[in-house]
Amino acid sequence: MINKYAKGYAAERQMLHTLAGMGYMVMRAPHSGSTSLASPDIIAAKHGKLLAIECKSRKGAFSIPVEQLNELKEWEEKAGAKPYIGWKIARKGWTFLHLKDVYENRGNVGKKFAEEKGISINDI
Amino acid sequence: MINKYAKGYAAERQMLHTLAGMGYMVMRAPHSGSTSLASPDIIAAKHGKLLAIECKSRKGAFSIPVEQLNELKEWEEKAGAKPYIGWKIARKGWTFLHLKDVYENRGNVGKKFAEEKGISINDI
Repeated sequence: MINKYAKGYAAERQMLHTLAGMGYMVMRAPHSGSTSLASPDIIAAKHGKLLAIECKSRKGAFSIPVEQLNELKEWEEKAGAKPYIGWKIARKGWTFLHLKDVYENRGNVGKKFAEEKGISINDI
Repeated sequence: MINKYAKGYAAERQMLHTLAGMGYMVMRAPHSGSTSLASPDIIAAKHGKLLAIECKSRKGAFSIPVEQLNELKEWEEKAGAKPYIGWKIARKGWTFLHLKDVYENRGNVGKKFAEEKGISINDI
């Protein structure tokens, strides 16, 4: 499991630096000593536009626990953030899924779904 | 020094929960494994309003390193956040100082300055 977490952490770091390079200010959620307060992996903001991003780094299809989707929903409704799931697909790069689409697919994310619904980082 | 950090951490947690109680979504900066990306202690957002807060818990006057002020400034200019220094004054509670005022006072914060310039959490 250490390997899985290390991979996820590296993917998050990459995403943080990509967003920073695009002019966003970014904050990564602390992964230890958590506060019981709902928090996505990354919050990014640029000229008043706020993004809430849950990052996933997986080779194949996966499901997102409804608690994580609900956290993003809270950031959308209360904070006014645009909520996304960012998927780093091996040998392909990042694709972004709207929270709404992932809810409609009952939290399931696979390659076909990502091809149909995914958008590039330039469109988030 | 452990005591100082523990006190600061407890003050930050208190601030996070207070803001959450006011309807803000909040994120605390990770204090380990940092990313070299500028980050205040707390980011809070509510209906598109974004706050960047550096928290201090000190008995008496203190100075804020210019690097920390500049981080807040970056969040103001690039992210569109409202930047504050939150000071938890022993036996008195929190007061909030505008970044601009703290810059003008060359990073120095004392009780007289806080009485003159400080605002309550309800006014941030």
